[in-house]
Amino acid sequence: MALKDLEELERNEDGIATAVGILKQRFGESLKTSHALREQHSHTVTYIPSQLPDAVIFAYSTEEVRDVVRVCAEHKVPIIPFGTGTSLEGGVNAPAGGISIDVSGMNKIISVNAEDLDVTVQAGVTRKQLNDYLRDTGLFFPIDPGADASLGGMAATRASGTNAVRYGTMRENVISLTAVLPDGRVVKTGNRARKSAAGYDLTRLFVGSEGTLGIITELTLRLQGIPESISAAICSFPTVEAACNTTIHAMQSGIPMARIELMDAETVTAVNEYSGLSNPVKPMLLLEFHGSTQGVKEQAEMFNAIAEEYDGEGYEWVSTTEERNRLWAARHDVYWAVVAQKPGKLGISTDVCVPISRLAECIVETQQDIEQAGLYGPVVGHVGDGNFHALLLVDKEDAAEVARAEEVMEKLAMRALAMEGTCTGEHGIGQGKRRFVRLEHGAGADVMAALKKAIDPDNVMNPGKVLGLGD
Amino acid sequence: MALKDLEELERNEDGIATAVGILKQRFGESLKTSHALREQHSHTVTYIPSQLPDAVIFAYSTEEVRDVVRVCAEHKVPIIPFGTGTSLEGGVNAPAGGISIDVSGMNKIISVNAEDLDVTVQAGVTRKQLNDYLRDTGLFFPIDPGADASLGGMAATRASGTNAVRYGTMRENVISLTAVLPDGRVVKTGNRARKSAAGYDLTRLFVGSEGTLGIITELTLRLQGIPESISAAICSFPTVEAACNTTIHAMQSGIPMARIELMDAETVTAVNEYSGLSNPVKPMLLLEFHGSTQGVKEQAEMFNAIAEEYDGEGYEWVSTTEERNRLWAARHDVYWAVVAQKPGKLGISTDVCVPISRLAECIVETQQDIEQAGLYGPVVGHVGDGNFHALLLVDKEDAAEVARAEEVMEKLAMRALAMEGTCTGEHGIGQGKRRFVRLEHGAGADVMAALKKAIDPDNVMNPGKVLGLGD
Repeated sequence: MALKDLEELERNEDGIATAVGILKQRFGESLKTSHALREQHSHTVTYIPSQLPDAVIFAYSTEEVRDVVRVCAEHKVPIIPFGTGTSLEGGVNAPAGGISIDVSGMNKIISVNAEDLDVTVQAGVTRKQLNDYLRDTGLFFPIDPGADASLGGMAATRASGTNAVRYGTMRENVISLTAVLPDGRVVKTGNRARKSAAGYDLTRLFVGSEGTLGIITELTLRLQGIPESISAAICSFPTVEAACNTTIHAMQSGIPMARIELMDAETVTAVNEYSGLSNPVKPMLLLEFHGSTQGVKEQAEMFNAIAEEYDGEGYEWVSTTEERNRLWAARHDVYWAVVAQKPGKLGISTDVCVPISRLAECIVETQQDIEQAGLYGPVVGHVGDGNFHALLLVDKEDAAEVARAEEVMEKLAMRALAMEGTCTGEHGIGQGKRRFVRLEHGAGADVMAALKKAIDPDNVMNPGKVLGLGD
Repeated sequence: MALKDLEELERNEDGIATAVGILKQRFGESLKTSHALREQHSHTVTYIPSQLPDAVIFAYSTEEVRDVVRVCAEHKVPIIPFGTGTSLEGGVNAPAGGISIDVSGMNKIISVNAEDLDVTVQAGVTRKQLNDYLRDTGLFFPIDPGADASLGGMAATRASGTNAVRYGTMRENVISLTAVLPDGRVVKTGNRARKSAAGYDLTRLFVGSEGTLGIITELTLRLQGIPESISAAICSFPTVEAACNTTIHAMQSGIPMARIELMDAETVTAVNEYSGLSNPVKPMLLLEFHGSTQGVKEQAEMFNAIAEEYDGEGYEWVSTTEERNRLWAARHDVYWAVVAQKPGKLGISTDVCVPISRLAECIVETQQDIEQAGLYGPVVGHVGDGNFHALLLVDKEDAAEVARAEEVMEKLAMRALAMEGTCTGEHGIGQGKRRFVRLEHGAGADVMAALKKAIDPDNVMNPGKVLGLGD
C-alpha cells in the first residue's frame, strides 16, 4: 500500500448527475446523498483516506441491484459494492465517484440443505448471522476472517482467516454464486453440485474479483458438521523458527489442525498487558482441534510430542468451551491489545503469504526491518497457511513515519515474491497493492486486464481497484 | 453427447500447409504426419469418431510448446493439446484439423517441496508416475480418476475420481500452473503460497478449460502425507436409496471418508462374474478410511452403526493392504467386467453430478430409463460427491441403439439440471456435451464465450470444444 498510488480518477460528472437523478426517482428514500452516509460508505479501517461516492443506494434484491447497474451502465457511472465496510485495502473507496450499492439489507438466508451440507444466502448475510441461524442444525460455516463481514464481501475478497488451514478459504467454500454483470445481466455461475467439469469456472472468476467484474448478490456455500469435540492448546517456543518447524512437522504428520495461530513475543507482551494474562513472553502457538472425543485427544497428544522435539514448553491442552475461550482470549484480543500500546496511532496490517518452509525466515527478516525503521509492529500468523500479519502502528499525521511504514511494506511484498509467495494472502489488492499485481503475475496481469475488459469494457465496476497500476 | 453435434469445422488449408512446413523445419523428426500416429492422437475411448490432426509434434519443454503455438497463431492454425488421450468426450479430436501437441514427453518432476507439501511437475507426468516418484517421501498426490492420465490433462479437464470426497478435485489441488497462451505468451498463474488474494484466479480459469484457453505445460500441486493407517470396508444395502442415505448421514456426522463408492446390483453381478466374487447381488458401498490406527477403527465403527440404521448388511472391515485390495478388486474391475457382459459393444459413460439429497432418485429414474430403452447400463457412483456413471454398452454400428443411448443421456442431463446438478461432474464438456453448456449456465455461457474471445480471439486453441453449440 502506498498513499502515492491513491490517485483520483477522472469523474464523469454529467453521467453521474443524470444517473443519480434517474435512480432517485426509481429508489426514492433508498437513495441517500448525505455527506455523513457517503463518508461512512467509503470509510475503511486503515489509514487510506476516504474517496466518497456520490450516492448510496440500499438494495434489497438481485433485481434492485440489476436496476441500479443498468442505469449506471447506460450512463457509464462507477458502481461500488458495499457489504459491511471492513475492507483493509480501500475496497469501498470511490476514486471516480459514482454509486455505492449497499447490500447489507440483503440479509435473507434463502435455503439450508442439511443433507447436501450447503446453504444459499443473500450477499449481505454476515458470517456470524449465518452461524447463529445454523446453530440448531448441527452445521456451521467455517470461514472466520475476524471481522463479522458479509459473505458477499468475503467471497469478493477471497477471504479466509484462522480456520483456513483445515477448511480452506472462500475459494474452496463457495459452491456457486449469482452476480449482476456490469451491463445489468444476471449470471448464476453454477448450481448445487459439489463438483462440476462443465465449462470455465465462473464461480472462481468472481471469487476474489473484488467487485470489479460484477456485484455478487447471492451465494451457495459449503457447510460442515459441527464436530463432536473441539479442544484447544497453547505452547510457547524459544524462537519463531521453532514454532514454524513444529507446524511443518505436524502438518506433514497429517494432524488435521482446525486452527494453528502464531503470536510473536511482542504480541504476547501486548495481550498480556491488555488482558491481564501471564503467558511467557516468547513466540507462542495457539491451536484448535476438531474431531471425535478420542480423535482430538490423539491429535493434541501427537502435537505435543512434536512440539517437544522443537523445545516447545508450557503446553496446555483443554477440552471445555470455557477453558478453550480462556486460552484463545489472547488471540481474539490481539488487534485491540496492539493498538492500545500506542494510543492515537492507526494500525495497518500487512498480509503476505509464503510457502511455509520460508515463513520463519520471512517473519524474522520483517521483524528486523520493522525494528530498523523505528516502528512498532507485532506479528500474528495463520502459520499453517504461511500467511502472517505485522500490525504496524503509525501516526497518519506523521508523513515520515507513514513513509517508513510504506517502505517496510514494500520490502515485505518484494521479499514474499522472492520466496515464491504472494503480496496478499487474504486481504485482497484493493487500491493499496495494485503495484504488486504485475510484479507477482507478470504476463498474467495482462490476462487479468483482458478479462476485465471483456466483462467490463467501460470500467464501471469498482474502478481503480485490483488492476491499473504498475503497467 | 450426440453424434449429430460432431460437426466438421472449416479448415484453413493454406494456413495449415504453411504452418506444417515451418514446423517441420523447426522440429524435424519430432513432427509426425503418419496416418497411424494422427489417428492415435485423435482416438478416444468412446464411440466418438476420430477427427485427425494434420500433424503431431512431440514437445519437451514450455519453450518448444511456445514455439509451436507462435507458428500456429501466426497462421491461424488449430492447436490440440495431447497428454495420454484418455478423454471421454472427444477432447483430443481435431474437427478443423491442425497440430496436435503431444506433451507426454514432458515428464520431468521439477521439484518436490516436502515441507510445503507441494510438487512442481511438467504437464506430461502421469499421476502414477508422480506417486511412484513420491513413494519414499511419505507423501502422495490423492486425485485418482481411474485412468493413468497426465496431470496436465487432469487439470485441463478438472478431473477428480474416487478420492475427491476427502481431498477435493483438481480445482482444489492445483496451486498454480504455467500455460502457453494462444498468442505464444507464457503465463504463470501463481506461485507456491497455499492461498492468495492477489487478483483474478487465473489458476482456476485454466483448470477445466480443456485446452481452449492455452496449453498447460507445468503445474504445482498440493500433496498429502500418507496416512498412518488405511482401512477399507464393504457393505450391501437393500436399495440404492438406503446406500445413499447412509452416505448422507455419515457425511453429516463428519466421518472423513477417503473414498465411498456405490455399485448398483447390476454392476455387482458383472464384477462377480468377471472376477469370481460372491458379493450379494444388491447395491453395495465400498469405503476407504484414512487416519491414525485408532482413528480409522473409530471411523469404520461409526460408519457401521449408521449403515445398520439403513439395513446395511454384510459389513466387512479390513485393515491390511492385502485384504483392502481384495475388497476393492470389485471396484477396480468394473469397466472390464461390464464391457465383458456384451462382447463387441462399446462403453459410453454418463457423468452427471447432483446434490447428494437427489442422488438416489436420479439413479433410480435413470436405471428405469435405461431399462425402458432396452439398454444395458450398470451404475457406479462417487456417491459422496453426488456423481455417478452409467456405463451404457452400445453397438456403434447399430444406429437405432446409438440413438436410444443418446436419448437416455439427453434425458439424464436434463434431469440433473432440474435437480440443481451438472451435466458433467468430472469428464468435461469436450465435444459431446456442448449443447448442455447453455442449458446449464444460461447467461454464463455468454460470459464463457467472452472470456474465450478475450484470450483466444482467433479460436486456435482446441476449437470445437466446450463452447459453440446450443447458442
